Amino acid sequence: MTAHPSNGGTVTQVDSIQHLPSPPHPPTVHGASESGHHVEVVKERTPQGGEWLLSGIICINILMLGCALVSSSAFNVVAITPVHRQIFLITLLVLTMLWMLFYMVVTSREDRAVLFKDRHAGPVWLKAGLVLFGLLSFLMDIFKIATYVGYLHCDSPVKVAYPIVQAVFLFFQTYFLWFHSRDCVQLHTNLTRCGLTLTLSTNLVVWMAAVTEESIQRYDSCTEVLSCSFLFLDEANYGAKKCTCSHMACETFKEAFYYLYPFNIEYSLFASAMTYIMWKNVGRIVDHHKHHKFNFYVKDVFVGPVAGLLLVVAGLVIFVLYKINILKEDKEKRNKALLIHFIMNIVIVSLMSLSTMIGCIIYRLDRREYVSDKNPTRSLDVGLLVASSLGQFIISYFSLVATVATGAQGYLNVLNLAWAVVLVVEIGLQNYFIIEGLHRQPINVMQANARAFQDHTEMANDVEGQISRYSISKKPSWKRRVLREVCAFLLLANIILWIMPAFGARPQFDHSAEIYFYNYTMWNAIVNIGLPFGIFYRMHAVASLFEVYLRD
Amino acid sequence: MTAHPSNGGTVTQVDSIQHLPSPPHPPTVHGASESGHHVEVVKERTPQGGEWLLSGIICINILMLGCALVSSSAFNVVAITPVHRQIFLITLLVLTMLWMLFYMVVTSREDRAVLFKDRHAGPVWLKAGLVLFGLLSFLMDIFKIATYVGYLHCDSPVKVAYPIVQAVFLFFQTYFLWFHSRDCVQLHTNLTRCGLTLTLSTNLVVWMAAVTEESIQRYDSCTEVLSCSFLFLDEANYGAKKCTCSHMACETFKEAFYYLYPFNIEYSLFASAMTYIMWKNVGRIVDHHKHHKFNFYVKDVFVGPVAGLLLVVAGLVIFVLYKINILKEDKEKRNKALLIHFIMNIVIVSLMSLSTMIGCIIYRLDRREYVSDKNPTRSLDVGLLVASSLGQFIISYFSLVATVATGAQGYLNVLNLAWAVVLVVEIGLQNYFIIEGLHRQPINVMQANARAFQDHTEMANDVEGQISRYSISKKPSWKRRVLREVCAFLLLANIILWIMPAFGARPQFDHSAEIYFYNYTMWNAIVNIGLPFGIFYRMHAVASLFEVYLRD
Repeated sequence: MTAHPSNGGTVTQVDSIQHLPSPPHPPTVHGASESGHHVEVVKERTPQGGEWLLSGIICINILMLGCALVSSSAFNVVAITPVHRQIFLITLLVLTMLWMLFYMVVTSREDRAVLFKDRHAGPVWLKAGLVLFGLLSFLMDIFKIATYVGYLHCDSPVKVAYPIVQAVFLFFQTYFLWFHSRDCVQLHTNLTRCGLTLTLSTNLVVWMAAVTEESIQRYDSCTEVLSCSFLFLDEANYGAKKCTCSHMACETFKEAFYYLYPFNIEYSLFASAMTYIMWKNVGRIVDHHKHHKFNFYVKDVFVGPVAGLLLVVAGLVIFVLYKINILKEDKEKRNKALLIHFIMNIVIVSLMSLSTMIGCIIYRLDRREYVSDKNPTRSLDVGLLVASSLGQFIISYFSLVATVATGAQGYLNVLNLAWAVVLVVEIGLQNYFIIEGLHRQPINVMQANARAFQDHTEMANDVEGQISRYSISKKPSWKRRVLREVCAFLLLANIILWIMPAFGARPQFDHSAEIYFYNYTMWNAIVNIGLPFGIFYRMHAVASLFEVYLRD
Repeated sequence: MTAHPSNGGTVTQVDSIQHLPSPPHPPTVHGASESGHHVEVVKERTPQGGEWLLSGIICINILMLGCALVSSSAFNVVAITPVHRQIFLITLLVLTMLWMLFYMVVTSREDRAVLFKDRHAGPVWLKAGLVLFGLLSFLMDIFKIATYVGYLHCDSPVKVAYPIVQAVFLFFQTYFLWFHSRDCVQLHTNLTRCGLTLTLSTNLVVWMAAVTEESIQRYDSCTEVLSCSFLFLDEANYGAKKCTCSHMACETFKEAFYYLYPFNIEYSLFASAMTYIMWKNVGRIVDHHKHHKFNFYVKDVFVGPVAGLLLVVAGLVIFVLYKINILKEDKEKRNKALLIHFIMNIVIVSLMSLSTMIGCIIYRLDRREYVSDKNPTRSLDVGLLVASSLGQFIISYFSLVATVATGAQGYLNVLNLAWAVVLVVEIGLQNYFIIEGLHRQPINVMQANARAFQDHTEMANDVEGQISRYSISKKPSWKRRVLREVCAFLLLANIILWIMPAFGARPQFDHSAEIYFYNYTMWNAIVNIGLPFGIFYRMHAVASLFEVYLRD
């Protein structure tokens, strides 16, 4: 195992130097103990009053205006039509693209613009997700263009222009985030901050618009199957009654792009997260030397990965069966599909809860030290994890209340209730497990510390004592091994829990108890806002569990 | 002017000592420059993984369950009645009271429990507001009890029990927050955190419930005046059709407690803010010596306070006239009252924008140093300020979109539009001004630094240069004086802008353009959620402007 102990040089604060020289900490013998102790000391430039403020004000204003416009276009279709909303969105998209172009030109010309890269920003899973969802969103735009071209003779050309602009924007933004998401910009910081919040708010407004559009379209399609007491007016459906499509494939395209909305929603969330991280990194000074190399071992673990893989395979089979059966006319078959889906999910989530509990108990037994430094990237990671888990929490609690209040009659309702309860338990435990894991001192760092302290006898004794319990020998202790098994299992289980909702399993709408209990608008809003965050949560959890796996 | 320069002793981290001795920084000559530079160095115990996590999980779960229950009781009154919701609330209130009792007993017995007090937590304005709104909420509960006693023969006794429990809770909580809001708890930190998040989530659920109840009651009263296309079912109105009140004063009491809802909503917000600050302070170690005494001078300023006082008096007169005329039958008189109210508000807000702009320009001219330390209390203050300003932002933007979309016909609509625009400008500028002001180095600290550096010749020259521009002599520079005038004026203007909505001016409902544009539910939700935050914002702004005044 290798580890690069962080060096003790304090990154001086560029700005304060100009006013008063701050005292340099002389490197002492004690200095080594401090630097070994801190895994990733990242000092930031002191945030100053007005620095982030202007960009914040811009963000708030665009968001509020966007929120008002999107809501109006849903609640009062006569005064504010979707065309107004789309003109606003086109303006935002074009402005954002112009800023990105400007940014890329400036940073490529000036060497000093980006002196530092944040290794933790823009992790692989975010980038991969961005590209995947970006491609599917692009497909959605193609279908949209094809559909609305058929209405050109009687409807506004803006409806064709918007998906075209959005398609271009998708390429622009994906390129931009792929290559620049790790930048810690040092030049034109104020302008960059404003540009980034413009990008952020554009993505969030696009997200709001997509959620609203999907709700309206889902309503139109749901009226055939269920009784939807719904608020939106029919004109929302781009005047389909008066204006008919001029080509045959219209209906097919419409249905196709309807199914692709969730990916566009997910894309906007991913882009928002990445832009937010970039915004946080503007003006940050990252020390390049603080890189710990974690080695990836698989040979020590066996039960976890195998059990996890079995779950994934079983989950995929059930998922395919569900997708086939749920569309059938026969109500019996649909209920059977729901039954199997519920049972499968309950089994997966229960197993996850159980293994997470084992992991948590081991953390309790294991008196390993906590990481004592403040790490902005980790805080952000934890914040995103907890915030995105709220999406699943809110769906589960609303489900729970609805099922309990109606008396949980019938096996489907009982299963639905059980699913909601175990999900709440599982997410709570998993959040605890991941956050606890991320805050523990990694093993190889402790070994590195031990080496650094070898001269310092009294300290060395102390640290050796801690490490002797771990893998100074090649073979890891049983605790460590169990933790790795748990991580591997949870990682794979989260993947299957990601795949199912991401690729279109929506028992929340196929099982109609909640739709009857809350009215349609309410339940639709809850699921459409909560579920994308829930999907984001699963992907984020996979990435975080991988990190915990490497640390243990 | 007097100032206590902060001493250089670093507060060592209690926890990390137990594992590894951290190197003490030897006090050097340079040390003095560092300590003088940092105004309020507050070192915190390193946050550890699971510490805040359990309390966070509890908070999220209670909040989500509360949110689901409150929404259900509004959207599906048949399955979940207000009685169910109130039983849930009673449980929460009783649990919270038990915890508070436990806390007060433990902290009074053990001396070590609270070693530190955060001087910045629980400021006077928050405490005063808490007591004021607490008393008015208590009055609301009295009226509620009196009303529902009349229904006891045919309605659930829970409806009487809930206001009784809430009234007791109000006393308990106000007492608790008055005496303990500055505590930095050191013992039983995990338990205390959980108790505080229980208190926090109880207050937030009570807040949600109050907002919902007010919306339902407002709907019942609004149907008489306006055409409200509304969703809530009539049964929500505690079965008034079947069950009649047994005493005469019922209707009067009902009307009375209806008007007191906003104070209860405000009370919950205040209590939540204070509990949140307490939660943040658990386990924190505050250095007692870092206290800067700011002296309060009035003699140097004149124009600002006088202009502000004139505004307050004029505003009060207009407010009283508005309250009298808006209830009249005559539509002419109501429109006139609205006209005068709009004009008055536009004048106040425009003057504020103008003076804030002057203040911002002076900050640009004035190259005073920024405070370079990280101060958790200030960050929290700034966060609360920006977050609470979102409430007014969202109302203004929705108003703006509605008025523009309907073409702004008639002078009332034009005035409404103008008001929305200047409010957005004013709040943006004021946020900038306050945050910039809070991040500037206070004058007396700079003087203290100068004294500390007198031996250190090269530095002293540097600092003297900066201070010579300010009041080393008794007479302050013109820039400083103008800043103080601006602060004093803004402070008083914020007070009148606080009084008007807090004591019941609701042009958002008296002027019906937005109610027609959005439907009633939507607009009601926006105003009922946004306005209490807007009121909180004004009070917070007053307190922050006072601090900026003292620093300049």
